Amino acid sequence: MKPNLMRIQIPCICYQQFRREALKIKIPATSANLGPGFDCLGLAIALYNEVTIKSSSYYSVSIKGEGEENIKLKKNNIFVSIFYDIYQELAGKKDPFRFEFENRIPFSRGLGSSSAVIVGAIASAYEMAGVKASRETILNKALIYESHPDNIAPAVYGGFTTSLVENNKVKTLKKELSDEIVCVMVIPDRSMSTAYSRTQLPKSFMMKNVIYNLSRASLLSAAFFSENWDFLRVASKDCMHEHRRMRQLKELFEVREVALKNGALMSTLSGSGSSFFNLVKKGEAPKVAMALKNAFTMFRVETFAFDNHGFEIVKS
Amino acid sequence: MKPNLMRIQIPCICYQQFRREALKIKIPATSANLGPGFDCLGLAIALYNEVTIKSSSYYSVSIKGEGEENIKLKKNNIFVSIFYDIYQELAGKKDPFRFEFENRIPFSRGLGSSSAVIVGAIASAYEMAGVKASRETILNKALIYESHPDNIAPAVYGGFTTSLVENNKVKTLKKELSDEIVCVMVIPDRSMSTAYSRTQLPKSFMMKNVIYNLSRASLLSAAFFSENWDFLRVASKDCMHEHRRMRQLKELFEVREVALKNGALMSTLSGSGSSFFNLVKKGEAPKVAMALKNAFTMFRVETFAFDNHGFEIVKS
Repeated sequence: MKPNLMRIQIPCICYQQFRREALKIKIPATSANLGPGFDCLGLAIALYNEVTIKSSSYYSVSIKGEGEENIKLKKNNIFVSIFYDIYQELAGKKDPFRFEFENRIPFSRGLGSSSAVIVGAIASAYEMAGVKASRETILNKALIYESHPDNIAPAVYGGFTTSLVENNKVKTLKKELSDEIVCVMVIPDRSMSTAYSRTQLPKSFMMKNVIYNLSRASLLSAAFFSENWDFLRVASKDCMHEHRRMRQLKELFEVREVALKNGALMSTLSGSGSSFFNLVKKGEAPKVAMALKNAFTMFRVETFAFDNHGFEIVKS
Repeated sequence: MKPNLMRIQIPCICYQQFRREALKIKIPATSANLGPGFDCLGLAIALYNEVTIKSSSYYSVSIKGEGEENIKLKKNNIFVSIFYDIYQELAGKKDPFRFEFENRIPFSRGLGSSSAVIVGAIASAYEMAGVKASRETILNKALIYESHPDNIAPAVYGGFTTSLVENNKVKTLKKELSDEIVCVMVIPDRSMSTAYSRTQLPKSFMMKNVIYNLSRASLLSAAFFSENWDFLRVASKDCMHEHRRMRQLKELFEVREVALKNGALMSTLSGSGSSFFNLVKKGEAPKVAMALKNAFTMFRVETFAFDNHGFEIVKS
């Protein structure tokens, strides 16, 4: 039994010394896949969910923004559930807290809202318990809750990330994103089912299609790392998943056409959709955004900078 | 007919003005695939074939080094044949030349000897005809003779390259290789059939295997571009082709084991084999090379620097 006791004892000591009374954490939205980089490439967007957690005499939840009208989210909240999983593991008990959510990342639109919840819950649990943890530790914990690393890695580190999973651990390299470029995101008025979307994908791929994506994902990674923006368009093409997924919302084919025609450097389905990610030089953003707004009046079109920090603990 | 006439006329003018009497060209060996980067990743090694071409009153060929004992290579020489294809296209006639080959890149060992021939022949034909051509032009011409770009791209540009093919054109990004690292190449005493090797590969791949290679090739590309050598080992793993190919020469499994155990940063089948490529920190090279020499006395083990120039015209 000795090893188990040891494992509990160490965090408890930390918990006694460093635990917090309150904190605010902000976690960025993310866009994953980026065309050919299925389940491995992603980047972080300066659109944040913020969560304030306070020691309290009783447990309570308040939600502003996305999901505020959904009463179930107060009772059965994934953030809270993951937070307590980790907090109890570290602190050895379940203290009562007040959770105040300010949700800005739209749900079920391929903008990494689930990853933001997972990463935010884990990072704040460590912080509230007073246990120091590296970003790598947070990321590996997050992999337990989301099996692919393409959204959780940029939510943790910010920037552009390329990741792989080896023996249930994530290996990620990050490149900071220049402020010369921004994102013009098209957010449709309806979601696309990720589960249905996955059933639409083939179980196997022909060699020539594998090489198509393999070569493009590698070059896309190199283009981000070397800031060769002119390579993004050709390197962001995909033949594995986008077309099949976009058939659920056919306007997305036109979204891409309008974006590229008006100067977007790349235009890809964000995660499994329904949002569409357009990477644009800062000076071109108003033109691209205007063209998309005019063509798709029923969709939200928003321009965001990129995030290069990943989640941040804001003292409070 | 006018456009056709125009096409012939322009190179002829250049040919009159700038054609050379002689040149020497050197072309580097290359190692492709690099594990997961099937048909897209490659790098150039400072091991060169050199070819001297001279205006002459009659056609002749001499060969030193690799292939010097093979009489057929004098009569039916691929370099000469490609050279004249291009030269005639540019100069409009078939002048007689003397070709002197100094071949150092072993044949049929996965070290890019064919790519060196193709790239060298095209680049020297342009040069002898006095027609200026960018490296991109040479590379795209080379794609006509070799359908995948992973060897021809580093033979043209040097360094580490990641390439894709779009509409029969190659797009490549190059990263210069640091002189902190070298290559310890294991060159077996026999070749492996590329054609047989290709028949051993599956026609299609399961999604999880595609993601395995896709994520590793992308991270490998990022690791080279950011010089994060510690990521090479995990990012250079492959599940698509190496194992099936290496079964033809089972000692290669042990080659990898010995190389990695003795400090190699990565250890991959070079192209479709039979050579094995080991990337090593310069200071570690003697140890890795010695361990490999001791374990595989029947194989050549050579340490090379990397090449960062690609083919070079040496004035003569």
